Amino acid sequence: MAPSGIITLITDFGLADPYVSIMKGVILGLNPGAKIIDITHELAPGDIFCAAMVLRDSFAYFPEGTVHVVVVDPGVGTDRRPLAFLTDQYFFVGPDNGVLWPIISENRGTAIHLDNASFFRHPISNTFHGRDIFAPVAAHLSAGVDVFNMGKVIEDPITLTLPRPIQEGKLLKGQVIRIDRFGNLITNIDEKTLKDFLGSSNCTVTVGPIRVYGISSTYGDAPVHKEVALMGSSGFLEISVNQGRATDRLDIQGDIIGIPVVIEKRRPRH
Amino acid sequence: MAPSGIITLITDFGLADPYVSIMKGVILGLNPGAKIIDITHELAPGDIFCAAMVLRDSFAYFPEGTVHVVVVDPGVGTDRRPLAFLTDQYFFVGPDNGVLWPIISENRGTAIHLDNASFFRHPISNTFHGRDIFAPVAAHLSAGVDVFNMGKVIEDPITLTLPRPIQEGKLLKGQVIRIDRFGNLITNIDEKTLKDFLGSSNCTVTVGPIRVYGISSTYGDAPVHKEVALMGSSGFLEISVNQGRATDRLDIQGDIIGIPVVIEKRRPRH
Amino acid sequence: MAPSGIITLITDFGLADPYVSIMKGVILGLNPGAKIIDITHELAPGDIFCAAMVLRDSFAYFPEGTVHVVVVDPGVGTDRRPLAFLTDQYFFVGPDNGVLWPIISENRGTAIHLDNASFFRHPISNTFHGRDIFAPVAAHLSAGVDVFNMGKVIEDPITLTLPRPIQEGKLLKGQVIRIDRFGNLITNIDEKTLKDFLGSSNCTVTVGPIRVYGISSTYGDAPVHKEVALMGSSGFLEISVNQGRATDRLDIQGDIIGIPVVIEKRRPRH
Repeated sequence: MAPSGIITLITDFGLADPYVSIMKGVILGLNPGAKIIDITHELAPGDIFCAAMVLRDSFAYFPEGTVHVVVVDPGVGTDRRPLAFLTDQYFFVGPDNGVLWPIISENRGTAIHLDNASFFRHPISNTFHGRDIFAPVAAHLSAGVDVFNMGKVIEDPITLTLPRPIQEGKLLKGQVIRIDRFGNLITNIDEKTLKDFLGSSNCTVTVGPIRVYGISSTYGDAPVHKEVALMGSSGFLEISVNQGRATDRLDIQGDIIGIPVVIEKRRPRH
Repeated sequence: MAPSGIITLITDFGLADPYVSIMKGVILGLNPGAKIIDITHELAPGDIFCAAMVLRDSFAYFPEGTVHVVVVDPGVGTDRRPLAFLTDQYFFVGPDNGVLWPIISENRGTAIHLDNASFFRHPISNTFHGRDIFAPVAAHLSAGVDVFNMGKVIEDPITLTLPRPIQEGKLLKGQVIRIDRFGNLITNIDEKTLKDFLGSSNCTVTVGPIRVYGISSTYGDAPVHKEVALMGSSGFLEISVNQGRATDRLDIQGDIIGIPVVIEKRRPRH
Repeated sequence: MAPSGIITLITDFGLADPYVSIMKGVILGLNPGAKIIDITHELAPGDIFCAAMVLRDSFAYFPEGTVHVVVVDPGVGTDRRPLAFLTDQYFFVGPDNGVLWPIISENRGTAIHLDNASFFRHPISNTFHGRDIFAPVAAHLSAGVDVFNMGKVIEDPITLTLPRPIQEGKLLKGQVIRIDRFGNLITNIDEKTLKDFLGSSNCTVTVGPIRVYGISSTYGDAPVHKEVALMGSSGFLEISVNQGRATDRLDIQGDIIGIPVVIEKRRPRH
């Protein structure tokens, strides 16, 4: 696979501080032709799970040969390993803290412990490996350096617990794994799992006090300000409100990520 | 007009979710040489009017041949049409929901209903036409594809009500149409309308409890923390506070957009 | 020094309004090959000091020949001068209001009053010199125009008071000069000053109610949720909380910037 020259960035650095731009400066110093695309920098500090979900939802829309960099790295400066993962289409770079696990577990590829310091920026700080390790490695990868020169193949990358939907009789139980700016509740129930479960049956979808009948095909299928369940653009079931916010319909104090979503089978559609 | 290779983006997607970057990935997959510039992604969800105002205030600063894409699309997945508008200088792409109307009504050009699905991404979702329709169309336009191959000319694009200033005797009545990060109140009173109305007269400008005498030429014409009215950089009258926020001087609960701005003619300047 | 084609931007414009993108449009109209990198646009309106600190912390990570533009410009439209500063590695452009002073005072170079309006955009507004002066000047510099054609050398750029750490017997007294998204308290105590002060001694670090023993090498040296003092990635002492926010440990109402940080020498390490 030839590099596309594109490097994407996912961090929890925010856009107010100069950290993201410093990574870009380092990248452009090593590969002036790199094209850098921000995926997001607005993750909650240290939120490895959300970083992993955002990466999984976005990586495949980029051209083959793109280098995807994730720096959500609460263990920076400890002995956690810097990691690369190579598939037949993409390069992934980030700390070995589980953030790359959904990619590693769902795609064929090779994990590499990045231990060749000749591809790092020196001196290597203990607090900003985005600048000193991940940015330079990404720049070198985007310029065609062979990842196998950068470290050793490993078989034991750190894993991340990914909640999977569970079938219990007439119920399919999943959970909310992401909320977006529109207040949509994005679940871990993928299209195939839902179709296999439902067959020709209809269903109700329950999350907190929200109860929706049937799966719609778009937001506008519900009256304005009414709840709707549909297959979202990332291939997972979403609970939304037409021209409103589903998050506002929950009466939950605290974190919405992880709350249960229950699909109940109903009599066949006809 | 040859494309410049530049594509601008205006959306209500925010920067926390991966949606904007997914559009960029799709664009770069179709035109690796595209140069993508964010105008804003921080519009309130579904705020077609503000999107239209931001586009009108910014499009003309870009090089000829730029493709301007607006995705504020509460009707995604319904039968609202995807639209392109071609002037002798620019391409505009977005949903046919009024967001392009200020451009269409104020510039000579051709509106095209984008109905040739061979320029879309497949499968086409019902919830993310930014990714599946507008990004690929923009990429193709930026690469030189003829927009007339992408759809049919239409004469009935959806309109948007644009508030115009009204003269009533010694009063010119306009309204606030945008507020910015500095708390400036940007009105719909353009320079020509104001000059024609005032002639050689002076004036007072009233908005809520704010009352300003005369039109200044810059913020610093007022004492620090004092209100000032001036012609803003976008060619419309603004009410500002020197090193402060005009929005903080209003005692208005709720939406500031749309509140009246009244110019009263005073005795001639001398 | 040949220009790298890279232009960085630091402003207080935010990302919701179109102002930053308008500057980019103007730049690309003059130099279509320019590569524009955002450092930050989220500075508090008019915060010259923070802009200066962000610039000082980030400029050196960019390739030689980069044009760094700062537009934090509360005096726009008054008689404050537009300024360029040329070192042997970089170009800097911004208003002469002190924002470039840390660069000017800490780097050998030449300050130039940009008074050649043939390199500006016309008509020049009184309210948006980012668009009309600084963006076009940066574009021309990035395209190789000689800065000495753009104005006159001056010797009296506006200064900015930079708080320096002060030694008083067994105490080294500094202050907080920046806080970041992670709640880290970044001080004005640089590594050399601290080392010279401490010699082989250990120390306590006190800021508000926080009291930390010794300087650690990374966040993870402290137990989770415990305070830690360390040399940050920008070369200045930081007070942090491992997987938490140091700002939350202060009981200070109002502005944290400027609060005292005191290093007290302790018995030698052994």
